[in-house]
Amino acid sequence: MTLESQILQAVQRVLPENGEPKPLHAPVFQGNESKYVQETIESTWVSSAGTYVNKLQEDLCSFTGINRAVAVVNGTAALQLALFAAGVEQGDEVLVPALTFVATANAVSHTGAVPHFVDVEESSLGIDVSKLETYLKQHAIVTSEGSYNKHTGRWIRAVVPMHTFGHPAFINQLRSTADRFHLKIVEDAAEALGSYEGGRHIGQLGDVAAVSFNGNKIITTGGGGAVLTNNKDMADKVEHLASTAKVSHSFEFVHDEVGYNYRMPNINAALGCAQLEQLPFFLKTKRKLAGQYAEALSEISGISFIKEREGTKSNYWLNGLLLNDPDMEQRDHIIKKLHDHQILARPVWKPMHYLEMYRDMPKMDLTQTESLYARIINLPSGVM
Amino acid sequence: MTLESQILQAVQRVLPENGEPKPLHAPVFQGNESKYVQETIESTWVSSAGTYVNKLQEDLCSFTGINRAVAVVNGTAALQLALFAAGVEQGDEVLVPALTFVATANAVSHTGAVPHFVDVEESSLGIDVSKLETYLKQHAIVTSEGSYNKHTGRWIRAVVPMHTFGHPAFINQLRSTADRFHLKIVEDAAEALGSYEGGRHIGQLGDVAAVSFNGNKIITTGGGGAVLTNNKDMADKVEHLASTAKVSHSFEFVHDEVGYNYRMPNINAALGCAQLEQLPFFLKTKRKLAGQYAEALSEISGISFIKEREGTKSNYWLNGLLLNDPDMEQRDHIIKKLHDHQILARPVWKPMHYLEMYRDMPKMDLTQTESLYARIINLPSGVM
Repeated sequence: MTLESQILQAVQRVLPENGEPKPLHAPVFQGNESKYVQETIESTWVSSAGTYVNKLQEDLCSFTGINRAVAVVNGTAALQLALFAAGVEQGDEVLVPALTFVATANAVSHTGAVPHFVDVEESSLGIDVSKLETYLKQHAIVTSEGSYNKHTGRWIRAVVPMHTFGHPAFINQLRSTADRFHLKIVEDAAEALGSYEGGRHIGQLGDVAAVSFNGNKIITTGGGGAVLTNNKDMADKVEHLASTAKVSHSFEFVHDEVGYNYRMPNINAALGCAQLEQLPFFLKTKRKLAGQYAEALSEISGISFIKEREGTKSNYWLNGLLLNDPDMEQRDHIIKKLHDHQILARPVWKPMHYLEMYRDMPKMDLTQTESLYARIINLPSGVM
Repeated sequence: MTLESQILQAVQRVLPENGEPKPLHAPVFQGNESKYVQETIESTWVSSAGTYVNKLQEDLCSFTGINRAVAVVNGTAALQLALFAAGVEQGDEVLVPALTFVATANAVSHTGAVPHFVDVEESSLGIDVSKLETYLKQHAIVTSEGSYNKHTGRWIRAVVPMHTFGHPAFINQLRSTADRFHLKIVEDAAEALGSYEGGRHIGQLGDVAAVSFNGNKIITTGGGGAVLTNNKDMADKVEHLASTAKVSHSFEFVHDEVGYNYRMPNINAALGCAQLEQLPFFLKTKRKLAGQYAEALSEISGISFIKEREGTKSNYWLNGLLLNDPDMEQRDHIIKKLHDHQILARPVWKPMHYLEMYRDMPKMDLTQTESLYARIINLPSGVM
């Protein structure tokens, strides 16, 4: 039997055919979603002020154990503001994994900084820290004010580990490299709400983190995101920038820097509060689904199921399998075979340095990213 | 009797005291808001795809008579994308009235361009076109590729008339100046949904326009906005940029320029569809309220009520009165007197060139803006 047929059969054992297309994700609303949202309409507090925005922020702090949460309009905006809070300015460089969704690099571009692409490694699908350390030693000059790229002359202000599919990147190891080169760690945790490293929720080990509540994420607010940080100054900065940098005054309109209109509307926050109540159930269901995939795919030679790394707990936001060897043709055969049976599998994102607008950005050797691009196939991962 | 007491009495004849504070605006939901929003939750289509986004766009086209509408996450984002669609690039200059809400200038900054502040005139509270024409003749050099600022060397790519409080700016007159200097007209119509110039809806006369559906606007989506244009290429560009510049493909993630995550979520669009159904009623109610203010304030000497200019129909989004002479102290006395009685009057926005981050931007003489800042007092304008 061909590899694609074996994979199809295994996936169909996990996801019985019912005539319905199976997307990677679909939101599930089975709690207080309608109730809370209706309350905002009845109270007329649907916009940028309201009790649900505060409640969502408080609930996020309780859930993650992180001191401050600022709810914003989406995950890209959260990452952009987190970068500003970390001190990134126009003309700086920011280290970003080449294997990520385009929003990671876009958020850097939106600050006026330049994404500088770094490679990932296989066990976490996140930044390869030892490769980064070696690279920085060769290409960055450390000064008392920070490090700069000796080729471009630009300051390298931050590194953005992305927790791919919800699997924690190596933040602990990254810390010593970041400290040595005076880099802030800005975690792109868009996919990682409910993921843990050594018992600590994602976002605890970096300086600041951004999560997403887009419709395909583990919980959704329609569109939305949040910045999480234990650093009060950073949280205050994010709140200020998200609210048009408005200075408190009883009636005058005073703004003290170029700000953004990035606050999350209360109607979206209401949806988020109800979704967050469901998160423990979603995590349990997703872990079970991942287990079923792992078992069903375990007998097939030439592939492996992507599992959480030892010492971490993944939210299994997005399940995936790995071909043993990079093979774009094989990858696409499998995806098409699954699509033919309404299983809407996808390859991983096209690496950033392959995209037109990021082709000429600074980058290290990206062998592993390029290899993984030809090996990863994502599978439907919704709560069923 | 003091001027502030006379004004208080007049306003109280319009807004009878009932122990409740009277903000400038509060949303009103008395139509299908709950029903449509509930439908998005039941269908699970709350996020960036869904039927209400398309419906809102179609309904906006029907209402305004403009060919294309693209719903986005807020009015600032709408203006930023409208500027990009008009060809504004990093390092350009954009002409912006100094009398506006800070988001107008911020949207320009977010494109990487520099706001260049121009003065307004009293009858429309919008750009003073003849003053602008004289100024550009002195300071801009016209070439076949556009005009540039002869002092800074930067291209001046666009002019952003803002329709203050919903009162139409002089777009017809601005057209000949814009054409002479090869400027695109990007209308900041955040406040002007439902306003008309010579029977044509705002946004028809410029090249592209941005409207807002923030909680304080004439209709609200919680947070949201839209770009309106008759220009197909501009609309396509806005849609592309708002959706992470994603190129259509059955399963690959390909993006061909630095894009944004600016699409309006379907749950917010559902609210907007219901609100748009109510817009004719809101317009009628606001026009009635404006008439009541006009009458109540007509007997007081030293002030006048701000009325729609001849040949235009204002949505009267925000009512205001004008002191005959600039007097900050008097202005603040009146505002405080009204606040003492729960009438939450406000001065107009602090002019852009008075704000720290915009102090050193290029600007013309701004005498009229500075004078109006010390003369305008806005009054509660909600649908009651």
